[in-house]
Amino acid sequence: MTVSECAGLLRGNDNFLILTHARPDGDTLCSAAALCNALRRMGKRARMFSNPEITENYMSFVMEYLSDERHDEEYVVSIDLANDNMFPKGFSGNVELSIDHHASNSGYAAHTLLDAQMAACGEIIMSLIRELCNELTLREAELLYVAIATDCGCFCFGNTTARTLTDAAQLLELGVNNGELNKAFFRSFTRARIALEGMIYSSLKSYCDGAINAVVITREMMRSSGATENDCEDLASLPGKIRGNIVGITVRELADGRSKASVRTNRQVDASAICSRFGGGGHFMAAGCTADMDPYELAGRLVETAGSYLK
Amino acid sequence: MTVSECAGLLRGNDNFLILTHARPDGDTLCSAAALCNALRRMGKRARMFSNPEITENYMSFVMEYLSDERHDEEYVVSIDLANDNMFPKGFSGNVELSIDHHASNSGYAAHTLLDAQMAACGEIIMSLIRELCNELTLREAELLYVAIATDCGCFCFGNTTARTLTDAAQLLELGVNNGELNKAFFRSFTRARIALEGMIYSSLKSYCDGAINAVVITREMMRSSGATENDCEDLASLPGKIRGNIVGITVRELADGRSKASVRTNRQVDASAICSRFGGGGHFMAAGCTADMDPYELAGRLVETAGSYLK
Repeated sequence: MTVSECAGLLRGNDNFLILTHARPDGDTLCSAAALCNALRRMGKRARMFSNPEITENYMSFVMEYLSDERHDEEYVVSIDLANDNMFPKGFSGNVELSIDHHASNSGYAAHTLLDAQMAACGEIIMSLIRELCNELTLREAELLYVAIATDCGCFCFGNTTARTLTDAAQLLELGVNNGELNKAFFRSFTRARIALEGMIYSSLKSYCDGAINAVVITREMMRSSGATENDCEDLASLPGKIRGNIVGITVRELADGRSKASVRTNRQVDASAICSRFGGGGHFMAAGCTADMDPYELAGRLVETAGSYLK
Repeated sequence: MTVSECAGLLRGNDNFLILTHARPDGDTLCSAAALCNALRRMGKRARMFSNPEITENYMSFVMEYLSDERHDEEYVVSIDLANDNMFPKGFSGNVELSIDHHASNSGYAAHTLLDAQMAACGEIIMSLIRELCNELTLREAELLYVAIATDCGCFCFGNTTARTLTDAAQLLELGVNNGELNKAFFRSFTRARIALEGMIYSSLKSYCDGAINAVVITREMMRSSGATENDCEDLASLPGKIRGNIVGITVRELADGRSKASVRTNRQVDASAICSRFGGGGHFMAAGCTADMDPYELAGRLVETAGSYLK
């Protein structure tokens, strides 16, 4: 389906319910909010599903679009959801339209607008709003800037293309204060997060000439740093910051005494194969498992297993 | 002077010596290398001054342009040097042409091409090479990508404009592998750097509801982390990562027993005023001082002084 066909579908309908995915990130939330804003500008009824997992850093951006008030025969549009396992908590039902940038989109919706070349779903929504309304408002531009920038690590990840940068440039030309948004999303951290990172870095152990790096996050570290779940975003990426890393292992002690591991790899090693040895699974470059061991023991066992895959 | 006038000046001359600034960064080095490459393509003799302070992360990018071989009557062009205090170690003499993006450029050169709107000098060099040669080569595009990206924190700092993003997009269209370059410059760190950051974060102390944040780097931390000077880039920015920070203080213990402090502030407090109390100075938002105290004592005194400026 083309952007223009998708715009036709939206024009011909009303009473939109816009879905964001489970454990929502900036792209799903702010793309959904921008589309909701545009649909309201067109005189349509539109609301975002009140995803219970929205973190506080995004709340001020999406609050005005969230609503629990139902309308008759809502037209359900999902944003950035590759499959129905990603439905937000509390939602079940059919999706009329899926707007997505995951090549793995399972085709669960009646209609799908998919562009897997885009770094962020926000880039697709940007084209779509232009098709629907000609222009973007400053509010929409701000939302789409956050959607795009958060999905490509502020233009630093490998998914950033010339198109991503050009789209972002056009959003700045509409008046987006990128300096302020970048400061909030990428350059400032809570005291507790920094304290926790300090402890995690101090726990880091390297093996096989730095090809395997492992960190442990204990409940005691969480307690003494004062960190909450809001401070724990993307901890699994920390061991991968070490130059020369191939397998990054992050093990967290759970409240029930078990331990949960995230394994991230580059293209050389299959993370899901490593995790499957411990009853877990996932993707080639990002997988996980939960085991009835203390975190240091699980980390040690994972390092050993990873070592055997390196050879 | 316009870009086109500057191009005329370069066309009319030969035997170029291209200067980079003291404590050189990615912008001065890679902008100079790109210009040197373009001048050589035009059949000119051109070399970069062998700045003795080039760090190893940039060496592979600039090596082929460095030369100590002198030619008669060299035409000296400085890149990214705001004033003659920034001359590289080992250089003295006159500068024919200064190409710069610092509004504070002192006018020390016979001719100056200045555009203070640019986030990086690399953006000016990009226009200049197009004027000189019509097209950029892939090598020049790579060099200019590194120049621009490193000067704006990979498009995250407040100096990033729509123009910066558009320029970078054009460089990617020429084939620059931004994913690989970003990984090298922004997303991978030595084991020693991470260990040192862990210790620094653990030493972080916050005052005045988080408005003042101070860290100490002792010689023992350097020793036990295995960090060298190459691992110490931009440590002064670390306290500023704390949400709500106004004054960030970084104090480092020197080999001679004295201590050296960097003070970074936002627009609310004058860092140079704080440092001048200890015989130092600098700019409004970034200043420093060296004192005959142990690092914890100097940090404490600076926190006290900063506190009096906050009120």
